[in-house]
Amino acid sequence: MSNCVVLLSGGIDSSTTLAIAHAEGFDLNALTIDYGQRHKVEIECAVAIARRYGVKRHLVLSLDMAGIGGSALTIQDIDVPKDRFKVSGNLANDIPVTYVPARNTVFLSLALAWAETLEADTIFIGVNAVDYSGYPDCRPEFIRAFEEMANLATKAAVQGGVRFKVRTPLISMSKVEIIRRGLALGLDYSMTWSCYDPTPAGEPCLRCDSCIIRERALRGCD
Amino acid sequence: MSNCVVLLSGGIDSSTTLAIAHAEGFDLNALTIDYGQRHKVEIECAVAIARRYGVKRHLVLSLDMAGIGGSALTIQDIDVPKDRFKVSGNLANDIPVTYVPARNTVFLSLALAWAETLEADTIFIGVNAVDYSGYPDCRPEFIRAFEEMANLATKAAVQGGVRFKVRTPLISMSKVEIIRRGLALGLDYSMTWSCYDPTPAGEPCLRCDSCIIRERALRGCD
Repeated sequence: MSNCVVLLSGGIDSSTTLAIAHAEGFDLNALTIDYGQRHKVEIECAVAIARRYGVKRHLVLSLDMAGIGGSALTIQDIDVPKDRFKVSGNLANDIPVTYVPARNTVFLSLALAWAETLEADTIFIGVNAVDYSGYPDCRPEFIRAFEEMANLATKAAVQGGVRFKVRTPLISMSKVEIIRRGLALGLDYSMTWSCYDPTPAGEPCLRCDSCIIRERALRGCD
Repeated sequence: MSNCVVLLSGGIDSSTTLAIAHAEGFDLNALTIDYGQRHKVEIECAVAIARRYGVKRHLVLSLDMAGIGGSALTIQDIDVPKDRFKVSGNLANDIPVTYVPARNTVFLSLALAWAETLEADTIFIGVNAVDYSGYPDCRPEFIRAFEEMANLATKAAVQGGVRFKVRTPLISMSKVEIIRRGLALGLDYSMTWSCYDPTPAGEPCLRCDSCIIRERALRGCD
């Protein structure tokens, strides 16, 4: 089976992951979740990147995570933190308010549902355990537990003998290594989007964690 | 912590589960997923039942699972099977076309996200392993694997010391036992909805698996 589902947000990590799955020769199905994030422009980037890589299918699925609450990325009255790097000299290790409760669990579940329908056995997700953010659902032990659960959850696994795999090619790379890998695969990072909190004119704020990490990494600094 | 999230579809099983959580003295938060099912009338039933049980919050979350495909419950051009019971004398054990890929995984993930936001540590779901349908995501081994994963996925579990529990009070009951339990708790089953494929006039078809099981169980037959 060479069919896969790639979770594609339109950011650096998921776009690099798509480029890697493409280079490995998979048939690509890209899944983008419109979860009420403030930075909707990333969805337009995902559409353009999916097209560039000639995906077979690109599903943009709407899910109103704002109703669930709990994150600065989806709730307008929680501010996205700014200038954390400048203030502390280094990004803090605590989980920030941009954490979306159980986001990767929800996204992987939707990818699993689609994978089962498409008869794909591989899901790619661009999580990164050495990421600045310390999100618990970016760690290898979470990914393994999800895989275990997926192989008990589905008709394909239980009756069809399919063994679902969650591939995380970036999990132990630094941001600079990720970008080097993407550049080597011909990825044009100007097509990607990182900012959590764009200005009203639709420009990156250049002050949120995600902007700071992006700018540093594109200059070759981890 | 006495706060819980109950997955409430408006059918017999989830409504009984809500009645049980209520009887146990939990603060109730009901989560209903509008996933593009044909039988949207069940959502109106869920609203009425949630009100009857005085839930603190009732979130009806829209999620377009029709985009994911693969089930007669969400895709109009796959027919809901009818009269299976009449033809075979007994419902077949294979997984029917009404199976929605990874549905309980997706629903539990959303419940987990909301539970984390609400600082609830308990999720109730009305799955039933002796159910006619043979869905893989109704079995105890799936529920345990989901719990395991949930406790690696979330900020609350990893940093907050919360241990998420997925409660499945109906998992080993027959349909008749479920209804006896609900009646003992004062549940009015005329408020619930079961039919997968209502008539254009909004009446139950009385021929799909779900209608047949309901009618038999309400008459006291398993």
